[in-house]
Amino acid sequence: MQVSKRLKNVTVGGSDGWGVFYRSRQMKAQGIPVVELTVGEHDIATDPEILKAMHQAGLDGYVGYQDFQGLLQLRERVADRVQRTTGVLTNPDQVLIVPGGQAGLFATHNLTCDEGDTALYIEPYYTTYPGTIRSVGGVPCAIQAHAANGFQPDPADIAKVASNARSLLINSPNNPTGVIYSQETMEGIAQVCRDEDLWLISDEVYDTQVWNGTHLSPRALPDMAERTLVIGSMSKSHAMTGSRIGWVVGPEEAVGYMGDLATHTTYGVPGFIQMAAVHALDMGSEFEARIAAPFRRRRDLVMGVLKGQNVVRAIPAEGAMYAMLDIRLTGMTGEEFAMEFLEAHHVAVMPGESFGAAAGGHLRVALTVADDRLEVALRQLLAFATERAARAAE
Amino acid sequence: MQVSKRLKNVTVGGSDGWGVFYRSRQMKAQGIPVVELTVGEHDIATDPEILKAMHQAGLDGYVGYQDFQGLLQLRERVADRVQRTTGVLTNPDQVLIVPGGQAGLFATHNLTCDEGDTALYIEPYYTTYPGTIRSVGGVPCAIQAHAANGFQPDPADIAKVASNARSLLINSPNNPTGVIYSQETMEGIAQVCRDEDLWLISDEVYDTQVWNGTHLSPRALPDMAERTLVIGSMSKSHAMTGSRIGWVVGPEEAVGYMGDLATHTTYGVPGFIQMAAVHALDMGSEFEARIAAPFRRRRDLVMGVLKGQNVVRAIPAEGAMYAMLDIRLTGMTGEEFAMEFLEAHHVAVMPGESFGAAAGGHLRVALTVADDRLEVALRQLLAFATERAARAAE
Repeated sequence: MQVSKRLKNVTVGGSDGWGVFYRSRQMKAQGIPVVELTVGEHDIATDPEILKAMHQAGLDGYVGYQDFQGLLQLRERVADRVQRTTGVLTNPDQVLIVPGGQAGLFATHNLTCDEGDTALYIEPYYTTYPGTIRSVGGVPCAIQAHAANGFQPDPADIAKVASNARSLLINSPNNPTGVIYSQETMEGIAQVCRDEDLWLISDEVYDTQVWNGTHLSPRALPDMAERTLVIGSMSKSHAMTGSRIGWVVGPEEAVGYMGDLATHTTYGVPGFIQMAAVHALDMGSEFEARIAAPFRRRRDLVMGVLKGQNVVRAIPAEGAMYAMLDIRLTGMTGEEFAMEFLEAHHVAVMPGESFGAAAGGHLRVALTVADDRLEVALRQLLAFATERAARAAE
Repeated sequence: MQVSKRLKNVTVGGSDGWGVFYRSRQMKAQGIPVVELTVGEHDIATDPEILKAMHQAGLDGYVGYQDFQGLLQLRERVADRVQRTTGVLTNPDQVLIVPGGQAGLFATHNLTCDEGDTALYIEPYYTTYPGTIRSVGGVPCAIQAHAANGFQPDPADIAKVASNARSLLINSPNNPTGVIYSQETMEGIAQVCRDEDLWLISDEVYDTQVWNGTHLSPRALPDMAERTLVIGSMSKSHAMTGSRIGWVVGPEEAVGYMGDLATHTTYGVPGFIQMAAVHALDMGSEFEARIAAPFRRRRDLVMGVLKGQNVVRAIPAEGAMYAMLDIRLTGMTGEEFAMEFLEAHHVAVMPGESFGAAAGGHLRVALTVADDRLEVALRQLLAFATERAARAAE
């Protein structure tokens, strides 16, 4: 039977570099204990207090069909939160509740791209970005942020390909690089969007994980609220990855159209999960800081382990829950390194190539195991790299 | 800012006949007590035992990212259930877990239709059908099932427009008509699909609500398993509308592609909801019968109230949770009747026109309030219709 070209095309080239991940899962299934530093998932579970609020909401009757745009209580809180962090007046009609950040990526690209339209994104990129663009029939066009420039994208590079495009997707704090876009970068990006009449899709799901500098939402820049779609999520900020709850904030008309899409895709988000999100947001910024704290601590731990040598160089993570390591002095690609390291030490890290060629010769290490275990893995990684670099230099 | 043509087009013509629904919500907001017989939602909440199982699953750790295709435990149970009801060997790799039946409608049309492809569906239809086809860039093409034929679709009518199409969407037991497709109808439909190489998308979410005859899944017919995509859901069968949990069963390759789509739309379904569904399915067919029982009872109540007159004629509901009433003797359209009846008696029913022209001059009454309240509403409706029919006959 015939399958749509669009769907056949979704994962084209998308599995590069996931060999390590699958091999690691295979080893685990064979009973080999593998330390997985691959996926961005907390080493703590969702707080029982949040789960209790979810259960209570179910018992209280939030078990039926819900407003497709989302519960007003939750949209109010999201509007408040976004207004507080961006300084832009935001009302609940500018908020769409979606089942997780990925659903926000899908909805925003569905809104902005017709079949054959070009959608821009920055490389290195989060794995689903090009597939999401393809899943709405769009043509993904990557713009490289260079390691030499600390992975800050250059607005001039974006401008070169923008005239033909409908949207630009950015992500700061960034996965996989840990970089936070500087004010200069963000202003340059905004200017390109204004000049070329682009939608700016701003994936801000790591906005509570900021270690250096300041997270600037481009929605706060002059005349940008009308063309910016901000994606937020409770996954990383509240350790609620499995609850699939997030939002899109944008112009009211755009939210209305994406609400129509929601009616025809998921028919709303479970009310009990939305009420759990209300409860979690009401737990305040102290709770968010508590969830974020281990990643900052482990980021410092990485910098400590790697101090005093230059075989493995860490891109200084300004935010998010990963360390990006430059291992090019070993003479190996990220894929070669990650696969051989996995077989040798049973520690799985992601090859940079999984996130695009711009991250070639790098590794992404998710800071998602206990500090002592992470330190052992990092020392193993450093020893392995040092040995390989010595061989390469021979 | 420019919005995709696809999304702008989703709800074109889709709001017809929802005026009554919105007016009823408005009246309620003004404090007027309205009896709502509009939406297909049970008058009972999700069983506390199911909610308890959900909570326990959360505490047990089902709070992280899940396999995009769905938990094996749940896919096994769905495969068993579908195999039992259809007699077709079914394995878990042929099952995709989705966040509700609507997500199944979206995934199957995304799989089968590219931009500009024609997708067939039967009128009267569930409200989201044409919008779902538009949301993937498809061109919806309705085939009328005629009131004169008891709303059974005629395969010959389908054959006339099939050569140009990619898929046919059917729904038996049917919302809004309550009709169950006969074996003859189903075999005729299957033959058209084989002859014209169509995907058959079979929405079977009412398969536990069968009052007369037998529900036949077209997947059980010769050579149909390879071209049939069955959509199921826990919403109607287990009173879990708000949990957004359902499935698509189809060929393994098709399920794989839809799994790729799931990765790029919702990134999986919450594990705790999937485990609640496992628990609910394990409660067995007795539980399902208990959830279905009130609708059968109320369907009989409708037939009783309408006995011995012919002003309002009920289409004999063979399944599902609605009564379809022919009020053409009043000389009014369904929309006129529903709106005037709402203003006069504060009872909201859906005009047939909401489900397509084929249901013009009809009303759909959701059997979703307590029996005594339903009986009062039906007697009011009958008196109102009788008075209007007398006027029309003058």
